[in-house]
Amino acid sequence: MEAQVGVIMGSTSDWETMKHAVDVLEELEIPYEKQVVSAHRTPDYMFEYAASAKERGLKTIIAGAGGAAHLPGMAASKTTLPVIGVPVKSNALNGMDSLLSIAQMPGGVPVATTAIGRSGAVNAGLLAARFLGAFDETIAERLEQRSEAMRQKVMETGDLS
Amino acid sequence: MEAQVGVIMGSTSDWETMKHAVDVLEELEIPYEKQVVSAHRTPDYMFEYAASAKERGLKTIIAGAGGAAHLPGMAASKTTLPVIGVPVKSNALNGMDSLLSIAQMPGGVPVATTAIGRSGAVNAGLLAARFLGAFDETIAERLEQRSEAMRQKVMETGDLS
Amino acid sequence: MEAQVGVIMGSTSDWETMKHAVDVLEELEIPYEKQVVSAHRTPDYMFEYAASAKERGLKTIIAGAGGAAHLPGMAASKTTLPVIGVPVKSNALNGMDSLLSIAQMPGGVPVATTAIGRSGAVNAGLLAARFLGAFDETIAERLEQRSEAMRQKVMETGDLS
Amino acid sequence: MEAQVGVIMGSTSDWETMKHAVDVLEELEIPYEKQVVSAHRTPDYMFEYAASAKERGLKTIIAGAGGAAHLPGMAASKTTLPVIGVPVKSNALNGMDSLLSIAQMPGGVPVATTAIGRSGAVNAGLLAARFLGAFDETIAERLEQRSEAMRQKVMETGDLS
Amino acid sequence: MEAQVGVIMGSTSDWETMKHAVDVLEELEIPYEKQVVSAHRTPDYMFEYAASAKERGLKTIIAGAGGAAHLPGMAASKTTLPVIGVPVKSNALNGMDSLLSIAQMPGGVPVATTAIGRSGAVNAGLLAARFLGAFDETIAERLEQRSEAMRQKVMETGDLS
Amino acid sequence: MEAQVGVIMGSTSDWETMKHAVDVLEELEIPYEKQVVSAHRTPDYMFEYAASAKERGLKTIIAGAGGAAHLPGMAASKTTLPVIGVPVKSNALNGMDSLLSIAQMPGGVPVATTAIGRSGAVNAGLLAARFLGAFDETIAERLEQRSEAMRQKVMETGDLS
Amino acid sequence: MEAQVGVIMGSTSDWETMKHAVDVLEELEIPYEKQVVSAHRTPDYMFEYAASAKERGLKTIIAGAGGAAHLPGMAASKTTLPVIGVPVKSNALNGMDSLLSIAQMPGGVPVATTAIGRSGAVNAGLLAARFLGAFDETIAERLEQRSEAMRQKVMETGDLS
Amino acid sequence: MEAQVGVIMGSTSDWETMKHAVDVLEELEIPYEKQVVSAHRTPDYMFEYAASAKERGLKTIIAGAGGAAHLPGMAASKTTLPVIGVPVKSNALNGMDSLLSIAQMPGGVPVATTAIGRSGAVNAGLLAARFLGAFDETIAERLEQRSEAMRQKVMETGDLS
Repeated sequence: MEAQVGVIMGSTSDWETMKHAVDVLEELEIPYEKQVVSAHRTPDYMFEYAASAKERGLKTIIAGAGGAAHLPGMAASKTTLPVIGVPVKSNALNGMDSLLSIAQMPGGVPVATTAIGRSGAVNAGLLAARFLGAFDETIAERLEQRSEAMRQKVMETGDLS
Repeated sequence: MEAQVGVIMGSTSDWETMKHAVDVLEELEIPYEKQVVSAHRTPDYMFEYAASAKERGLKTIIAGAGGAAHLPGMAASKTTLPVIGVPVKSNALNGMDSLLSIAQMPGGVPVATTAIGRSGAVNAGLLAARFLGAFDETIAERLEQRSEAMRQKVMETGDLS
Repeated sequence: MEAQVGVIMGSTSDWETMKHAVDVLEELEIPYEKQVVSAHRTPDYMFEYAASAKERGLKTIIAGAGGAAHLPGMAASKTTLPVIGVPVKSNALNGMDSLLSIAQMPGGVPVATTAIGRSGAVNAGLLAARFLGAFDETIAERLEQRSEAMRQKVMETGDLS
Repeated sequence: MEAQVGVIMGSTSDWETMKHAVDVLEELEIPYEKQVVSAHRTPDYMFEYAASAKERGLKTIIAGAGGAAHLPGMAASKTTLPVIGVPVKSNALNGMDSLLSIAQMPGGVPVATTAIGRSGAVNAGLLAARFLGAFDETIAERLEQRSEAMRQKVMETGDLS
Repeated sequence: MEAQVGVIMGSTSDWETMKHAVDVLEELEIPYEKQVVSAHRTPDYMFEYAASAKERGLKTIIAGAGGAAHLPGMAASKTTLPVIGVPVKSNALNGMDSLLSIAQMPGGVPVATTAIGRSGAVNAGLLAARFLGAFDETIAERLEQRSEAMRQKVMETGDLS
Repeated sequence: MEAQVGVIMGSTSDWETMKHAVDVLEELEIPYEKQVVSAHRTPDYMFEYAASAKERGLKTIIAGAGGAAHLPGMAASKTTLPVIGVPVKSNALNGMDSLLSIAQMPGGVPVATTAIGRSGAVNAGLLAARFLGAFDETIAERLEQRSEAMRQKVMETGDLS
Repeated sequence: MEAQVGVIMGSTSDWETMKHAVDVLEELEIPYEKQVVSAHRTPDYMFEYAASAKERGLKTIIAGAGGAAHLPGMAASKTTLPVIGVPVKSNALNGMDSLLSIAQMPGGVPVATTAIGRSGAVNAGLLAARFLGAFDETIAERLEQRSEAMRQKVMETGDLS
Repeated sequence: MEAQVGVIMGSTSDWETMKHAVDVLEELEIPYEKQVVSAHRTPDYMFEYAASAKERGLKTIIAGAGGAAHLPGMAASKTTLPVIGVPVKSNALNGMDSLLSIAQMPGGVPVATTAIGRSGAVNAGLLAARFLGAFDETIAERLEQRSEAMRQKVMETGDLS
């Protein structure tokens, strides 16, 4: 089935984080594609990727990057699809640089930023599902079930007595 | 026409920021509703608002809050709609507390965080439009035109010689 | 004996930190209950827990959470009991996000914030004991003895010569 | 009537912030005393103040200070009463230094930290009321009424349409 | 004379900062061009500008931007000329976001980062002059004279007695 | 010989850091005493220690502490001797809290703050030596020799070719 | 009388801050000299100043600087006198950069760092007086009287009733 | 062949980071020299090194340092050659202190700052190459080839399917 979500990341080392976004998409049976696309090392390809995303049938792009993380914001400048940015934990500053480089976009070009690292990747997958679920009742139901399962797990295992 | 976007904020003082989200929605002719909904002062109403948002026809919620900003994350826990969080600039810490309180959500309950303050509110409106535009060509075209107008304005006025 | 302190935390992984609050309560013979209660995964249960805390005989709630830590503040919005918030050390930002999400509450809904991590959990237990001890001479005396024991230990072992 | 809450602060310049704690206590009809007590300029008096607080009938101490804010923690080391620390907004670092100097207490000597500045002072007053209200139904009811009034005000004025 | 330095900035509001770079270039008689080039609003033009800079005779590019400042890093990805990045002071975070977005570039695509704001713009002009001066004795001498003038001014006016 | 420098620290766990101050004092043959003195656990003893330091012959106090580090500032409030504060690296915030709690003293009660952790402890020892050396030529000469030895070591080993 | 304290600062704009150090020295009748000495604009003069300070009779140097504040640390590398560093509040980062540039010296070359801005300048003057007072009973007595005056002022004006 | 780039660092422990700058220079066949030069331990030698750099044929200096990193800025004050500063990751603050100490130079003495740690060292080597490449087509071509190789590697290995 045609990919609805494009998952891109600045380098192969980001995969360890970004695979958690992919895991969520698989769990929710949302077709996706995944690719390393570097803002700084493959700028032209990044532009092509983002500019052609909509006509290729994607409904949203998830972009993970660390440090001076320019990938989500630049992708957002080349498409009108919603772009979700995942700040990958960086070596020296623990992802605070990644977070600010992604979240602090100027008015005009939005990026939907999630948390630093693994939690942010999980939530990027869920956020993509929520976008789709607003228009697709099947996905919305899967999200409801996932939330209910989380709830039940806490209720069942949360008694520490 | 039925509201597609719900714009909520933690207090009336957030309106000065959040009106920029509303301005974008009006510019793009996207029907919306707006309301003060406080996570801390009206917790039950917040839960009702978020829990009923989808059946009331909303496709996304934009939630602005400052300081220990719990509104976007708590709204997200009560709906499967995508929730966009706008960190309002706070008094002592300039919105760094707002940003971290909104962005650093645990895996499982996503919030689409934008920039601190006015830019973030503008982009929240645009992000909502991008969600809708992924499924509504009319909105997608308005976004294209808006981007093109921004581009032309820079090209026409950017010559500083 | 009926629990006087309710110790809650956002996830089972917070137990490693929060057990230090429980250890203090046991040491001071203060009856307590403990439970995982997640603001984001079990929002309704959290509201019920906090709203019923007073009538169930609790005198204070200790709530630990990390990252965008909404549990203490949201619990405080549903009860008039004092709520003590413990910022659990988070993965990327070492608990700075937890601290700000808990401490920077808006005027109207107070949370008694302690230090990040284990020290904060210990002090949450002691703070609960101080609340009770202000009205219960037995607990106050145990606190006096604990302080005196700390003092003597420093005096006896602090000679580094 | 005998003071139940002692409100102290490191310098007269902190009064502009700390008066908001006093306003809450007056609103809730909780008897209090207020005094400038400087950890650094009047260390002996600070020790006397804290050491005698309990026998003078106080149930809690609210201590506000800025910068290297040592007053709340040092007061807490000389009493077993609960001490609430208010980080006053500082000149250069906007109260981040005050917050860390108050919140990051070592295990053994707890301080109940509130938000930086005016919100924190308001909440210090409310936190003191919650301590008392856990054992005094009249105060608990006033807190309930205050919360309900906040709720109604949001409901009545929050319609931005 | 053909421009040797290209001074670009993300928006017209950056001019107030970036004019100080231009002032230095004029003072040192280094030919330059200046232009608003937005990474997010004119991404294609940015790529053309950077990609053609070398063949147009430029020896270095000075790029100023604020917030999630992607202009310097993206320009650097499209040229082998040295790119100097000036972090413009941002509204909420005072340029800390700008600094990290520019300085924390991944290995492979360097940006020569200067200080936040006006000092950084002045130094960007001087850094460009130092690049050129390493191969152009006339410029090197002007830099020597400028340093000597600074030195003398301090020596003459620095006696505070 | 009578101690000229008093080295104190908030807990035995600070010794791993503070021993580096002692090592410098031994190397420079400056008589010292060392002791655990806790601001929070032994407040009275801390006051006695600082208040009697001068009459006991001390010329300066070196005080190390971590987190909400109150020891140096409180010691300084009870003596007119110079107090050197060493911010010990803390668990969650890596000593940033220690640094601010020590450095940001209000006007009136000075603390001579050094770097976080081991370097700061080394420099505390050297700073004490410099105080003494300003009035004691023997110590001044030892400091000169130490600087010269550092210089020669760099000159001899710094050739990386 | 021969100056005992040398007060230097990186630029004339630092005088507004550093005059508070001078005021304290005058109040305590400690002879001093004052001068603009720039690490970056007059590096050779800075080295001469520091290298000759001791033989000129100075007992300590107070050095104020902002931003990448190199003056205190570099002065300390050219003398064995104690150097007190005052972090001047900087434009973009409020002196956090100044504080870290001065405090975080490597082991081997100590700087006695004070607080950011005016409080730090006041305390630099007091710290210099404490150095001298450890060997000069007249100055020690003036410091005692100053502390006592501060104490009395708090006691007399601190009653807020 | 005569060195064109001088690579200096504050201590031998910086070599682990700075060798990555040297690796790039070797890869691009740019002659260099390398040396430990400490601002604080060998201040005179540092001044000689920087002051004589240009006449010795160097075209640029790469200076790495950590903590209160004064080497790049002080070197820049003694030469008109471009100085590239590499913030070495520091022990307590992960290089944030190094970054601010290098980047936040006052207007008048520029330093070209790169990222914290290894990435910054790699980019310092590349930045030096870009300076030279602006005037040397052979180096410019090697840079082009390096960029192209990076691009191809991403294109070839970036398919994660």
